[in-house]
Amino acid sequence: MSGPRIVVLAGGVGAARFLQGVLSLVAHTDVTVIGNVGDDVVFGGLHVSPDLDTVLYTLTDAIDEERGWGVRDDTSRALERSRALGFDPWFWLGDLDIGLHLARTAWLAEGSTLSDVTSRFAQAMGLRARLIPCTDDRLRTVIQTMDGEIDFQEYFVKRGHRDEVHGVRFDGAAGTSPAPGVLEALQGAAAILLAPSNPLISIAPILAVPGIREALEQRVVRCVAVSPIVAGAALRGPAADMLRSLGHDVSPLGVVDLYAGLIDAVVIDDADAQLAAAIEARGVSVVVADTIMRSAEARRNLAHAALQAAGIAERT
Amino acid sequence: MSGPRIVVLAGGVGAARFLQGVLSLVAHTDVTVIGNVGDDVVFGGLHVSPDLDTVLYTLTDAIDEERGWGVRDDTSRALERSRALGFDPWFWLGDLDIGLHLARTAWLAEGSTLSDVTSRFAQAMGLRARLIPCTDDRLRTVIQTMDGEIDFQEYFVKRGHRDEVHGVRFDGAAGTSPAPGVLEALQGAAAILLAPSNPLISIAPILAVPGIREALEQRVVRCVAVSPIVAGAALRGPAADMLRSLGHDVSPLGVVDLYAGLIDAVVIDDADAQLAAAIEARGVSVVVADTIMRSAEARRNLAHAALQAAGIAERT
Repeated sequence: MSGPRIVVLAGGVGAARFLQGVLSLVAHTDVTVIGNVGDDVVFGGLHVSPDLDTVLYTLTDAIDEERGWGVRDDTSRALERSRALGFDPWFWLGDLDIGLHLARTAWLAEGSTLSDVTSRFAQAMGLRARLIPCTDDRLRTVIQTMDGEIDFQEYFVKRGHRDEVHGVRFDGAAGTSPAPGVLEALQGAAAILLAPSNPLISIAPILAVPGIREALEQRVVRCVAVSPIVAGAALRGPAADMLRSLGHDVSPLGVVDLYAGLIDAVVIDDADAQLAAAIEARGVSVVVADTIMRSAEARRNLAHAALQAAGIAERT
Repeated sequence: MSGPRIVVLAGGVGAARFLQGVLSLVAHTDVTVIGNVGDDVVFGGLHVSPDLDTVLYTLTDAIDEERGWGVRDDTSRALERSRALGFDPWFWLGDLDIGLHLARTAWLAEGSTLSDVTSRFAQAMGLRARLIPCTDDRLRTVIQTMDGEIDFQEYFVKRGHRDEVHGVRFDGAAGTSPAPGVLEALQGAAAILLAPSNPLISIAPILAVPGIREALEQRVVRCVAVSPIVAGAALRGPAADMLRSLGHDVSPLGVVDLYAGLIDAVVIDDADAQLAAAIEARGVSVVVADTIMRSAEARRNLAHAALQAAGIAERT
């Protein structure tokens, strides 16, 4: 009954929406999502895994669709109380969301791994696709700015990603191992997709786990990236500014160059169709599609384009 | 304008209610409360200080009066969510309460001391009495049972204090110092009161901080204890069973013996009036009063009895 296995490397909001499209086209149990943990943060003692949670909440229809993250209809009694006590709750956590972080933190403290915990959440929430953190070890994205190195969430949330980024470092990456199942999933995949996530801070931390980049380099199946850059801008977040300040082309071309040796095809937006020839000159085939994902249909169409580029025949 | 300074060593619920009585009789700014931290617990990553919080909530009229702890009208969205995810939230935390723990945990992680944090909370919540944890260092009450040593909250909450207690140990106590202001308060006090708290697990951890017991022994003012044992039982919690299993008299006499050398007088309940002679034979004077604290008036009357025994003239 099972079809070709699909592995998707995923960041947060864009990846989660793309995955909704993928899961509308293939059997959920055929999909393995390898999630970023570089933006994990301990806030007020709670271990928060923003990218894993965004994927989990989105794919189980718990997401606050408007914001793209957090739990729909959540309240903020805890955070408002902390504010009344003089605390600056710069990292927003809803009360329901806190329940999940509290469970995660407690289980981790008891010795569970992040992938165990994630799998328990996925099961409790009814996610049938497999969601695995890229590593169970500590890996943290650190942003290099004029003010020195700052933690990712401090850069991203507290300072509103306004700092010019001079470099990105994945603290601890060299000492990490892929979480159980990650390499097996990559090696058993019929296709690998890089979700439309920021290549520098969403996909790169995953690739920084020793063994994962190598598994992609040595792939025997097609790997397809979806460009998160459209017409010189990012749909969300600081990707465009980061590409620029780090000297990359702010276009799908820049994305393709960052994925050199890792991908066989890229899905780019209609608005960037004129770049197809330049990209193909680099040996990467191009599919042009609407990549904006405004609606469920758009997400499905984008996933369809990526799966086609990967040579996957969908169930219909 | 300020009157005689009163220092109260305090545990949780009983102490907090007794303190309400004290604060109804003397200027709030004349009172220093030295709180127990032996029952602090990190739950789901959050640093919870149950005794400090019970005092804080009670004295700022935020307490859930019926339970005696937690915040009135609090909700439990976070904890119910954690339960839905398969977690056992055996330590109850309301959403508003979590806001305070989250702030505390974050501030401690930033390098603040527990007394700094407590003082920020007190100020934000309008507490004019001074509340100081006995120590800013790590001190944890550990309960020795047939199943070995268990953490205090595991004994108290998770296992519902059903285990027979073979011993009590204050982990880390030898390495602690009194928090700033504790010894100064004791040395500058016009009277010292030991609240009606469990002597073995609420007051003893405070006395286990090097310097505090010595300050009491060397006092030049009266120190008065209020017995938490009435007619052979504790009004709340496991004090009676613990006294019994540890070989102490389950009566105000047992309490007085535990405080040997530390107190000049004890307030005992009307129900125990017949013990007065035996207690006075030990050189401790006795005041008999209603110690049950059912109402604000009862709390006030009990505080009045303790202050009188301490030789303090109240404002009227």
